[in-house]
Amino acid sequence: MTEPKISTVAVVGTGVIGRSWIQVFARAGCQTRIHDRDAAQVENALAWVERDLEEDRKAGLLSSEEVAARRSRVTAYQSLKEAVAGAGYVQESGPERIELKKALYADLDRVSDPAAILGSSTSALNMTEIASGLPGARRCIVTHPVNPPHVVPVVEVLPGEKTEPEVVQKVCAFLKEVGQTPVLMNFYVPGFLLNRMQAALIKEAMNLVTSGVADVDGVDAVIRDGLGLRWALMGPFGVANTNADGGVRQYFTRYRDDYIELMNDLGPTPEFDAGSVEQMGKATDEMVGGIDRAEIRRWRDRMVRKIRALKKEDPLQ
Amino acid sequence: MTEPKISTVAVVGTGVIGRSWIQVFARAGCQTRIHDRDAAQVENALAWVERDLEEDRKAGLLSSEEVAARRSRVTAYQSLKEAVAGAGYVQESGPERIELKKALYADLDRVSDPAAILGSSTSALNMTEIASGLPGARRCIVTHPVNPPHVVPVVEVLPGEKTEPEVVQKVCAFLKEVGQTPVLMNFYVPGFLLNRMQAALIKEAMNLVTSGVADVDGVDAVIRDGLGLRWALMGPFGVANTNADGGVRQYFTRYRDDYIELMNDLGPTPEFDAGSVEQMGKATDEMVGGIDRAEIRRWRDRMVRKIRALKKEDPLQ
Repeated sequence: MTEPKISTVAVVGTGVIGRSWIQVFARAGCQTRIHDRDAAQVENALAWVERDLEEDRKAGLLSSEEVAARRSRVTAYQSLKEAVAGAGYVQESGPERIELKKALYADLDRVSDPAAILGSSTSALNMTEIASGLPGARRCIVTHPVNPPHVVPVVEVLPGEKTEPEVVQKVCAFLKEVGQTPVLMNFYVPGFLLNRMQAALIKEAMNLVTSGVADVDGVDAVIRDGLGLRWALMGPFGVANTNADGGVRQYFTRYRDDYIELMNDLGPTPEFDAGSVEQMGKATDEMVGGIDRAEIRRWRDRMVRKIRALKKEDPLQ
Repeated sequence: MTEPKISTVAVVGTGVIGRSWIQVFARAGCQTRIHDRDAAQVENALAWVERDLEEDRKAGLLSSEEVAARRSRVTAYQSLKEAVAGAGYVQESGPERIELKKALYADLDRVSDPAAILGSSTSALNMTEIASGLPGARRCIVTHPVNPPHVVPVVEVLPGEKTEPEVVQKVCAFLKEVGQTPVLMNFYVPGFLLNRMQAALIKEAMNLVTSGVADVDGVDAVIRDGLGLRWALMGPFGVANTNADGGVRQYFTRYRDDYIELMNDLGPTPEFDAGSVEQMGKATDEMVGGIDRAEIRRWRDRMVRKIRALKKEDPLQ
């Protein structure tokens, strides 16, 4: 990683998403100023960062010097104004309620450096609405990560109607500099890209289970030991491109009728009624076999990092 | 791997899928008898197996002894009858046309050992129909792999109406013994599990591109650098289970309304018209940047094997 062009950032809101952003920026060498309205959240986030760095040190992934360097880049501030002072980028990860978000953006727009970019971790709200009426609407943009962003690199970048093209370009460049994968959306749709595609998969997965075609473990196995092994490497278009000797054009032409028939046959929106949720809950418990959820998450994060390391060592080229 | 209980198998049909099955069985220590109506296909398959083993030897993944052992287990036969003689399991990978499949199954049922299980690689046909009227319908079953099965382990197992429960159980046990991941389906649905879930993802991915929300590379990046990194480890239920502190029940209860709204908003079946297919083709070409398709496939297979090795070294437990 080269030195990021924005050397000082502020992380505002330090819950589960915000605390992971702290790691992203501190890892990349940024001075990382943090703030949360709730002082306890800041304490929790700092303790979590500390534990996480310590685990990586123990696992031999980080030197003591690197741990110390990252730690030294993180500073907590009691006031929002202090926290954003001198920051060229602000990553906001506050509550997902439009009134709160609008109020927070009004504050951020007032107290931050006029040249700072104000990115929001929102997974659902529209920046056009959040920044509506703000003098600094031009510098407000959605930068929605996957949880946790210090492990999974994709960030959905969605400008509002007033966001300047230069801000879009700068934020994408900066996110790349700090090791993330920005994905630009051209306009707002509910759920953005990631949650729409996730919903599409869950929708069919649930139908396959509730209709009795297969059980939860079988449906999950088809992904984790089948399709998911490719999707860690290539998206649906990249995969389609390798599925026919003539590439994606030939694949979608040859299987056009089959796909249309299949897509028309996919199941309806599930009801998420108590009975089916309990059915899936029980089957998932059996599948997981009593392994502690925190342990599963640690395993997931460790494995995602290993997969990313494999891809870095042996990239497609 | 323990010694498979079925020591002699026949691979009938040695195209792209069949040749990969040869590797699965020879790797597991089975005597592997192969046949294709088209003698040239057999030659091609043997040459491909040879090249593939040789590449693994050069890469240090296989010893010369192991290569020799696997090679020695594979024998080609000119007649179907000879090929299936003594085989306890037949993996059929013939053309995907119902009349041809029925005729081939009638032949297989007549010439094979009455105790042999007859598995079909079909991705779309219904075993109830293929085996209709055959004296040995009880031992006929769909065993649909992902391409290529010697790299990606999932096999969809789908009995026909006449298939005996004991056959289902035996074939699942055998597939595990040879290193695959059998997934049992309770009844036929078009596209089985895998192609339905793949179609669900492609359907939304195409809509996101053709409606202009994002481009092909962006949509693919959301999968390969986002969701896919998890899906290589856990299916949709496993992921949902880690997405809330209270697990899958809490996740699907808390986000019930959001998911219902989002699922109702997902895009329609695309038209796959020439214009949109060309749009996706052009964008995919740009994304891939001129890398040879055969090279991409080699990379994909190499990386899938590496990811599987990671999961084997550090399993969730």
